[in-house]
Amino acid sequence: MKQLTIRSTQRNYPIVMESGLRFQLKRRLGNDYSSILIITDEHIADYYLEDVISSLQDNAVYTSVVSSGEASKNIDEYYKLQSKAIESGLDRKSLIIALGGGVIGDLGGFVAATFMRGIDYVQMPTTILAHDSSVGGKVAINHASGKNLIGCFYPPAAVLYDTETLATLPYQEVRSGYAEILKEGLIADAALAEELLPLSLQHISSEQLENHLEAGIQVKADIVEADEREAGVRKYLNFGHTLGHALEATLGYGQVTHGEAVANGMLFALHVSENVYTQQLPFNELYHWMTRNAYPVIDIEEAHIDKLIKSMKSDKKSVSGHIQMVLLHQVGEPTVENLDDSSVEAYIKTYIERMNKQ
Amino acid sequence: MKQLTIRSTQRNYPIVMESGLRFQLKRRLGNDYSSILIITDEHIADYYLEDVISSLQDNAVYTSVVSSGEASKNIDEYYKLQSKAIESGLDRKSLIIALGGGVIGDLGGFVAATFMRGIDYVQMPTTILAHDSSVGGKVAINHASGKNLIGCFYPPAAVLYDTETLATLPYQEVRSGYAEILKEGLIADAALAEELLPLSLQHISSEQLENHLEAGIQVKADIVEADEREAGVRKYLNFGHTLGHALEATLGYGQVTHGEAVANGMLFALHVSENVYTQQLPFNELYHWMTRNAYPVIDIEEAHIDKLIKSMKSDKKSVSGHIQMVLLHQVGEPTVENLDDSSVEAYIKTYIERMNKQ
Repeated sequence: MKQLTIRSTQRNYPIVMESGLRFQLKRRLGNDYSSILIITDEHIADYYLEDVISSLQDNAVYTSVVSSGEASKNIDEYYKLQSKAIESGLDRKSLIIALGGGVIGDLGGFVAATFMRGIDYVQMPTTILAHDSSVGGKVAINHASGKNLIGCFYPPAAVLYDTETLATLPYQEVRSGYAEILKEGLIADAALAEELLPLSLQHISSEQLENHLEAGIQVKADIVEADEREAGVRKYLNFGHTLGHALEATLGYGQVTHGEAVANGMLFALHVSENVYTQQLPFNELYHWMTRNAYPVIDIEEAHIDKLIKSMKSDKKSVSGHIQMVLLHQVGEPTVENLDDSSVEAYIKTYIERMNKQ
Repeated sequence: MKQLTIRSTQRNYPIVMESGLRFQLKRRLGNDYSSILIITDEHIADYYLEDVISSLQDNAVYTSVVSSGEASKNIDEYYKLQSKAIESGLDRKSLIIALGGGVIGDLGGFVAATFMRGIDYVQMPTTILAHDSSVGGKVAINHASGKNLIGCFYPPAAVLYDTETLATLPYQEVRSGYAEILKEGLIADAALAEELLPLSLQHISSEQLENHLEAGIQVKADIVEADEREAGVRKYLNFGHTLGHALEATLGYGQVTHGEAVANGMLFALHVSENVYTQQLPFNELYHWMTRNAYPVIDIEEAHIDKLIKSMKSDKKSVSGHIQMVLLHQVGEPTVENLDDSSVEAYIKTYIERMNKQ
């Protein structure tokens, strides 16, 4: 078992990583909750919902199963879940368990944050990617105009990471999750980045995975403790996300996984960093990591540049019409730059040229 | 000018009361906001929107005018306002101004609390009643099943109370607001309660009104500072609200003002308090205050008791199926009791008998 504690202004909460945690919920959660609503998706429900329910015997347990995928993070699903919580008689001493990946964590967390002005919730991540979103208390749903535009900061009561549930992940999801772990290495843990960049993700042991997860969570935990509300260093976690989000939005959510989009975004951010700081960065290593591990290397067309730039400007982090990007002076030394449209356009053009030569 | 500061865990914020404050917004808010969205209702827009806009010259100002009345506090209006904020290009350095009564404060505040995970908002209350809801950081919208079921705790950046805007209030709204001031007196300021109970509200000077508002806000401020998240003493503010909310829901929102419902709820709470603690309380004084000032004295019918009890049980404050009521040992000494259905039913029956004899 691995455990760390996150200190936040609203509460401190533990992150527990252990194989088989879903069978120990009664012991972990105690009996103080008046009732429990489990929010999960169809896919995860098939695998793990029964285990979780039987582990909560003697509690009044309700379940809501939503469709799998990003599309469920919408206002209608949110309102339906609020209705379900009310119909089930949940009160201020009730608990919501978000059992699933980042979509379920964000959606279930936002329901908990705003049901009767906030009740407890527990994150039970079932993907590698969700190691990132489950820590730090960011919860949200999407607006038709962009991801996570409606949400708040609301820390969970606990993050219970049953690493056994990662064994059933399809390879695409492993890839998606590892992009965020690599990001954590690149911005704050050079040793982790150096260990990851030469790897083939198809040959990772569960012990390696747990160690990588722990290292990544540690980076995330240190950053969110230092800057809970994203006024400063927390922005570094958006490394690769400015273009990454724009690619997701432009290609259409679901066409590319979040981590795949972020991997492409990181490659672009390294390209910009090298140009801005005239510094050598592991651009080629990241490119080879992506091709070796079958990440889609997204072919950006000149015709799409305007759309991408518009999307990058509508990002939550952008202020006063500039595009905010996290760049690296070197691995482990991130910084935030506000760039104007024309600079970003120029960098995208040189990036396209560079990619054509790879 | 009267000013006090509320300390909350997330931020400290000032409450400023002054005649003509709406003409001084530039000075009060500064120039640091990248843009400003004013949320108000049709009725208030006619009176004061132009004043507020011209007072904000040099800022990028957008406006959203919603229909007047409780019905606007719904999920569709909420999503429309999020869309408006996005379309207007608001970012994390933008400000929302909630110009209006409690409906606008709750709705505008909840939009601000959840737009891009929370941006600043300023409450500009334009009713007496809103002295209560604008202080303390509770923001929410209604669910079809009950009031304020979806919301969170999110303190404003400031409360700017232009007392001049109270001059245009219809008498029914004066009555509604004074019920909450009287409540504040009854639970925590016996001198205020003694001063109010003999009054005729139609003959109140603006100086008296300001003094009463200040005393009421002071009670509210002390309580929310001591208990921001309603774990303890903040519940006392719900004096009169258990039956009050149930009456609003059962009669249909808008059939009776909030304060009118609360006045009836307080009368019932005094009745229950007298019975539970065998104590003499100002039941008759409150009854005469209500009739003197033309509060509707709601005639509860036996046939509606089941519906009222069901509604009281679905209140956010209720836990594990009990009905939570704030009672008074004496004026200024509130306490919280969890009552079962049958006790409450018996109290309603004796209350009906007592009212029939008045």
